[in-house]
Amino acid sequence: MAAFPTLFLDSTSDVPLYKQIADALVANIEKGVLRSGEKLPATRELSVQLHVNRTTVSAAYALLEESGFIQGHVGRGSFITHKLPSGAAADVRATASVGVNFASSRPAHEAFPLAQFRRSAKAVIDSDEAAEILQLGSPYGYGPLRRYLLEEAKAEGVVRSGDDLIVTNGCQQALDLLARSFVSVGAGVMCEDPVYPGLLRVLTGHGAQLIPVPVGPSGLDLDIAEDLLQRHAVRMVVVTPNFQNPTGATVPLEGRRRLVRLARASGALLVENDIYGDLRYQGESVPTLKHLDETGNSVLLRSYSKVSFPGLRVGWAIGPREVIAKIAEEKQMADLHSDQLSQAVSLSFAQSGELERHLERTRQLGAERLRTILQACEDYLPVGSKWTEPQGGMSLWLELPGPLTAEGLLQRVREQGVDFLPGSHFSSRPEHVRSLRLGFGSVSPEKIRQGVRVLGETAARELAAGRYSSDFEPAMALV
Amino acid sequence: MAAFPTLFLDSTSDVPLYKQIADALVANIEKGVLRSGEKLPATRELSVQLHVNRTTVSAAYALLEESGFIQGHVGRGSFITHKLPSGAAADVRATASVGVNFASSRPAHEAFPLAQFRRSAKAVIDSDEAAEILQLGSPYGYGPLRRYLLEEAKAEGVVRSGDDLIVTNGCQQALDLLARSFVSVGAGVMCEDPVYPGLLRVLTGHGAQLIPVPVGPSGLDLDIAEDLLQRHAVRMVVVTPNFQNPTGATVPLEGRRRLVRLARASGALLVENDIYGDLRYQGESVPTLKHLDETGNSVLLRSYSKVSFPGLRVGWAIGPREVIAKIAEEKQMADLHSDQLSQAVSLSFAQSGELERHLERTRQLGAERLRTILQACEDYLPVGSKWTEPQGGMSLWLELPGPLTAEGLLQRVREQGVDFLPGSHFSSRPEHVRSLRLGFGSVSPEKIRQGVRVLGETAARELAAGRYSSDFEPAMALV
Repeated sequence: MAAFPTLFLDSTSDVPLYKQIADALVANIEKGVLRSGEKLPATRELSVQLHVNRTTVSAAYALLEESGFIQGHVGRGSFITHKLPSGAAADVRATASVGVNFASSRPAHEAFPLAQFRRSAKAVIDSDEAAEILQLGSPYGYGPLRRYLLEEAKAEGVVRSGDDLIVTNGCQQALDLLARSFVSVGAGVMCEDPVYPGLLRVLTGHGAQLIPVPVGPSGLDLDIAEDLLQRHAVRMVVVTPNFQNPTGATVPLEGRRRLVRLARASGALLVENDIYGDLRYQGESVPTLKHLDETGNSVLLRSYSKVSFPGLRVGWAIGPREVIAKIAEEKQMADLHSDQLSQAVSLSFAQSGELERHLERTRQLGAERLRTILQACEDYLPVGSKWTEPQGGMSLWLELPGPLTAEGLLQRVREQGVDFLPGSHFSSRPEHVRSLRLGFGSVSPEKIRQGVRVLGETAARELAAGRYSSDFEPAMALV
Repeated sequence: MAAFPTLFLDSTSDVPLYKQIADALVANIEKGVLRSGEKLPATRELSVQLHVNRTTVSAAYALLEESGFIQGHVGRGSFITHKLPSGAAADVRATASVGVNFASSRPAHEAFPLAQFRRSAKAVIDSDEAAEILQLGSPYGYGPLRRYLLEEAKAEGVVRSGDDLIVTNGCQQALDLLARSFVSVGAGVMCEDPVYPGLLRVLTGHGAQLIPVPVGPSGLDLDIAEDLLQRHAVRMVVVTPNFQNPTGATVPLEGRRRLVRLARASGALLVENDIYGDLRYQGESVPTLKHLDETGNSVLLRSYSKVSFPGLRVGWAIGPREVIAKIAEEKQMADLHSDQLSQAVSLSFAQSGELERHLERTRQLGAERLRTILQACEDYLPVGSKWTEPQGGMSLWLELPGPLTAEGLLQRVREQGVDFLPGSHFSSRPEHVRSLRLGFGSVSPEKIRQGVRVLGETAARELAAGRYSSDFEPAMALV
């Protein structure tokens, strides 16, 4: 097994891991790295090697067996089939790419402005600034981009006189640098629950003691937040007030004011993750926490990655000068500075007006998709289902009627080509065993209806068959 | 003072901080942000705000006063002069850019292949892969680049069957991720002394207990290393065997073999920083530690940034699969993945053969500069001076005869437009009070001779004048 090829999985990808594993194995078969007759590693072995669940590897093997790439022999393991069926590679790819993928929270890729990117990038490359861009830069970011972002923020009223701005490799790095700078081991950090798991990983990775606050349709529960802030020493509060991932919830103006007051009273650093703020499809936009916080002592995180080119890692943080200086110090330690080419290209794309045109188009598509998924939920989901009604962003949160569980349903709908992320991905609270995230940003309206229909019909069938054992149910007291 | 503009300093820049401060103030005067008659902050105040030494701010103010931008009034502070002298901005810029800057350790910028960069970048942008590049990527790096680097490494014999590769934002991030992954608070990390200060910052930032080993002409002193490895628990050993920064020292083959044995016996993870390895100007290349370590349990760090475009943050680490997997996990937390555009452009530049042509030219220039600086040291430095004789890289290490100190000499030669980094920048050991780094990679041969002549003549004058108080001398026992 020493010669078995390394498979590269991308846990940030929208493609489910089992499909990534299957694709990677097919690629190796196609390249002749894996040859017919060769034995695959046992699922347990491969799962350890890839740091994934054994069931994920089993799902990959099942898919490959269906597609005729491998054959399983009880007690002997799985083997590459002797004869590679012609066109089979294309088939398994098609299996992986058709169907309805609600697991993603990306914007529509049909709207991806490739021609405009090419123009912006070439303008940068041909410019006199190219030589400067290729030299070492500043931990604070590429000067012209910093100035542009600061001016935009000033025009919007989210930057105060004592504020500064630093460019980061997307919002993820801003969160990491904030954690490095301000979270010592055991420090309390308040966060939303459910929440984007990358946030939890980075916080616990730096030793934070998480203080989760349940999220409802109006964002985090402020009564609970207030109580927790009084009872715990909280170093940092991290909130996504616009179209929170995964729930899609937005904190209304009064809630934001209260949240700012609570954070101020507690002395915690308020961190506002606003990467979805530009994706509002309906309703009026609500001022940022940063704008409402008159003490200026909060940090606003934004990024181009969700709204333009995710592969270019360009985000930024705006906050009090001392906070930004501390982050810049950590940034210099972490990687000296962000890539300058992508910063310059992002600036060129924004300044040319292409970003705004692209956002407009993304919002049109998003609005249509949001309307479609809400209507489809209404039309197809069984009685007792509950879902959030976001005003923007890329996902909604669905709670299935008991005794259905999200994991159980996922197993059934995957067979039909529908994928989503169960609530357990976003929360460890047992009441989320019935919840799931539906990412609609990158799914066409037609697929959205097809997918929700599969979800609804499968759920109804499962409910009728009463297949669920009580093992899947949360304990009574917690429901 | 609330309206005083934020000045952005780049501590990674080759431009000394006092010049950066002066330049930034001039820029603000030119833009009308700072107006004539306006009072500048006190040096203490600005030094706190900018996190620099007060003497750095004083030096900036002195430069501006000389150039007629500001005027100091004893007891009242410094004021912007009423009348902006026409052309003065250009003058202060000229003061900052002429002279001889030995403070840098960059390769020659005359050789900067801008046209070739433009071709490579446009090829990427026009390619069918552009759409993929702009999507979210893998924490392990852009697939085609990873494969290319792995193949190159295989051809060179530095990758073993159990190895893997991850792309990082330059070597700095590789060091940071290694520290995050393997250095817990209080863990012992062996490093060279003197050494690149960014390494010390990242290690101590993660709580490492530094175990410095003195570096001589043949790299780190292995007798001392052996003794220290026996007496301390060492988690990681970080070494730059080729043309170490700042000394330029190279570890010979036998030393490398012994170092690998010592690291293996101690159980420490051996980390080999090889960012200068491609810049050998004379002598035969020596196998990497990674190649010599038959257990495979060491990590090799490389980067395109020192040899192609420093503004594109593309480095990589090769090591045992488990080590790379751990780094990838931290990488995902830190910033999801490296920028894909710069990875693709770097790959295109390498695959087109332009990187090799550029390296060839850089080595020709470097060889000439190295010959020139060694000859200039011979010709101009006072008796008792000692310097290293590197076979490549971008810097040499000079020890002045007593009672001269590097800081003292720097003050004198700065007035004459010559700059370098004193030994205190690279080591806290008191015996380095006389040492300094001369970066020659980006200085033309003519300037090298001029600069070393200024150093030599100034040193001779200072020695003759006997100006140094005994305060500057290290304690006897330590000399």
